[in-house]
Amino acid sequence: MKLTDIFWPFRSDMNYIERELDRAIDTKESVLQKASSHLLKAGGKRIRPVFVLLGGKFGTYDIERLKLVAVPLELIHMATLVHDDVIDDAELRRGKMTVKSKWDNRIAMYTGDYILARALMMVAELPNPQIHKILSRAMVDLCIGEIEQIRDLNNWEQNLRHYLRRIKRKTALLIAISCQLGAIAADAPAYVVRQLYAYGYNVGMAFQITDDILDFTGSEQTLGKPAGSDLRQGNITLPALYAYHRSPDAARFRTLAEENRVDEMIQAIRQGEGIDVARRLANRYLARAAQALEGLPDNRSKDALLKIARFIGERQF
Amino acid sequence: MKLTDIFWPFRSDMNYIERELDRAIDTKESVLQKASSHLLKAGGKRIRPVFVLLGGKFGTYDIERLKLVAVPLELIHMATLVHDDVIDDAELRRGKMTVKSKWDNRIAMYTGDYILARALMMVAELPNPQIHKILSRAMVDLCIGEIEQIRDLNNWEQNLRHYLRRIKRKTALLIAISCQLGAIAADAPAYVVRQLYAYGYNVGMAFQITDDILDFTGSEQTLGKPAGSDLRQGNITLPALYAYHRSPDAARFRTLAEENRVDEMIQAIRQGEGIDVARRLANRYLARAAQALEGLPDNRSKDALLKIARFIGERQF
Repeated sequence: MKLTDIFWPFRSDMNYIERELDRAIDTKESVLQKASSHLLKAGGKRIRPVFVLLGGKFGTYDIERLKLVAVPLELIHMATLVHDDVIDDAELRRGKMTVKSKWDNRIAMYTGDYILARALMMVAELPNPQIHKILSRAMVDLCIGEIEQIRDLNNWEQNLRHYLRRIKRKTALLIAISCQLGAIAADAPAYVVRQLYAYGYNVGMAFQITDDILDFTGSEQTLGKPAGSDLRQGNITLPALYAYHRSPDAARFRTLAEENRVDEMIQAIRQGEGIDVARRLANRYLARAAQALEGLPDNRSKDALLKIARFIGERQF
Repeated sequence: MKLTDIFWPFRSDMNYIERELDRAIDTKESVLQKASSHLLKAGGKRIRPVFVLLGGKFGTYDIERLKLVAVPLELIHMATLVHDDVIDDAELRRGKMTVKSKWDNRIAMYTGDYILARALMMVAELPNPQIHKILSRAMVDLCIGEIEQIRDLNNWEQNLRHYLRRIKRKTALLIAISCQLGAIAADAPAYVVRQLYAYGYNVGMAFQITDDILDFTGSEQTLGKPAGSDLRQGNITLPALYAYHRSPDAARFRTLAEENRVDEMIQAIRQGEGIDVARRLANRYLARAAQALEGLPDNRSKDALLKIARFIGERQF
C-alpha cells in the first residue's frame, strides 16, 4: 500500500491545499519568494494537512475553514525544517539542496520566520480562540523540543524518557494537533476531538521512531541523505540508546562511542537488536493509535486513519 | 528631559509589565530560561509597551487587557533582536554580550523562536480577531524588512525610498501598531485608533533615522558598540546614502566606498552634511507625529506622546 492510495479519495482537496500553500507564501520580495517556494517544492508528504482533513470528516466538513488550519500547520512544520537545517548545517533535505546551502543561513533564518508569520496570518482568519491557544502552545513546545534536542546532542547519559519527550515535542505533538484542530474546526463533538488527539499523538510517536529506525536501515538513495546522519550529527535516537545502555554488546559499543568511531557504531546498530526493540515500541504506539479510534463512528476517514497507522508500521522509507 | 520622567505617571503599570515579561518567558528548560532571561535583563527602553499603555488611555484603560498586547509586542521585538544578532554576528548589544556570543547561534535562533511563540500564546488570550490580523501582518512585514535589509547590504545603488521602506518595516511599523493595538484593546473610537497609528508610524520613522544618525555621531560608550557599526556591517543608512549620492564631496566618497575604506568613510560622514539632512528629515516626521495627535482629546497620555516625540528630536543616545 502507498500513502497516495490512502489519500486518493481526498486528492482534489489536497490539490487545493497545495495551491493554497503556494498562495500563502506569495510575496513580491524575490529572494523570499524563491527560497519559500524552493522549500515548498522540495515536497514532503503533507501529512499534517491530510490529518486535518481527515479530522474534519468527523464534523461539518468545510474545506474553506479546514484550510485555515491545514495550510498553517504545514507552514509551521516547514518553518521548523528551515531552522533545523540552519542548526544542523544540513546541505541536503529529501535529496534537494536546503535553503541554507542554496542561499545562506541568514536567508534561511528569515525564510523560516517569514513562513511562520504567513502561517499566523492565515490562522488569524479563524475566529476560534481555542485554536489559537492550542497552536501557540504547540509552538512553544516545539521550540522547547528543539532546545532539548540541542542539549541532548552527543549526550549518551540520556535515557528512554528523554528520547520519548523529545520526539513528542519534535513530531508527535504537531500531528496530534493536526487531527485535533481539524476536528475542532469542523465542530466535531468533544470526545471525537479527544480521541483524534490521542490517535495523532500515538501515530506521531510511531512515525518518528520509524524515521529514526530508517535513518540507520535506509540507503542514501531512499533517505535523500547519508545513512546514520542522526548519529553523525550527535542526535542519539532509540536504536543508538539501546546499543549503548541495553544491548549485550554494550561494553564494546561504549568504547566505540568514547572514541567517536561513528561508522563502526552505525554498523553495530544496524546489526544489533536495537532496531527490533524500536520497531516493537513503534508498533505499541500504533496499536494505541488504532485503539483511540475504536469508539469513533465508522466512516471513510476512520478507515484512512487506520490505513495510515498500518502504513507507518510497514514503511520502508 | 529623560524618558523616565515622561513615563513617571505610568511607572507602576510599567513595573507590572516588566514582571509579566518575566513570567511570559518562564520555562523549566534551563538553557532557554537563561538565554531568554539574559535577553530580557539586557534591558531596552520598553518603548513598545509604553506606547500600548499610552494608546490605552484613549479608551477604557484596563491593564489586564492591555498587557496581553504590550507584553507580546515587546517579546516580538526581542525575538527579532536575537535573530538579528545571529545574522549580524554581533557580539555585543547595549554593551552586553548577545545570546549568540554567550551561548551560540543555534541557541539564539531557538530562543528567538521560543520568545515569539510565547508572545503568540499570550496574544491568543485575546478574543479580538482584528488584533490577531494586525499583529500577524506586521510580523510578515518585519520579516520582509529583514530580508530587504540583507538584500540591500553593501548595495550603494539603493535610493532614499529603499531606505525609508526598510526602516518602516524594521522599526516604524511595530511602534505604529503598538499605539494602534493599545487603543483597540481599550475599545477607543476608530478615528483615535487611526490617528495613533499615524503618530506611531511617524515617531517610529524619526526614531530609526535618529538611531542611524547616532550610530555615526555617538561614542562607543554611549552606543554600547563601536561607532559606525552599521556601515561596517554593510548596512547603508541615510547619512551614508547622502554622502554617496548627494554630498558635494560625493566623488571622493565613492572612491572610498569602492576601495571599502570604512574608517575614512565614517569620518567623512561624521563631518559631512548628511547628518543634518537626516536630522531635518527626522524632524519632519516628528512634526507629522505631533500633527496626528491634534484632533485627539487632551489628556495626560497625549501630553506624554508629545513629550516622547520631542525627546526623540533631542536624544543623544
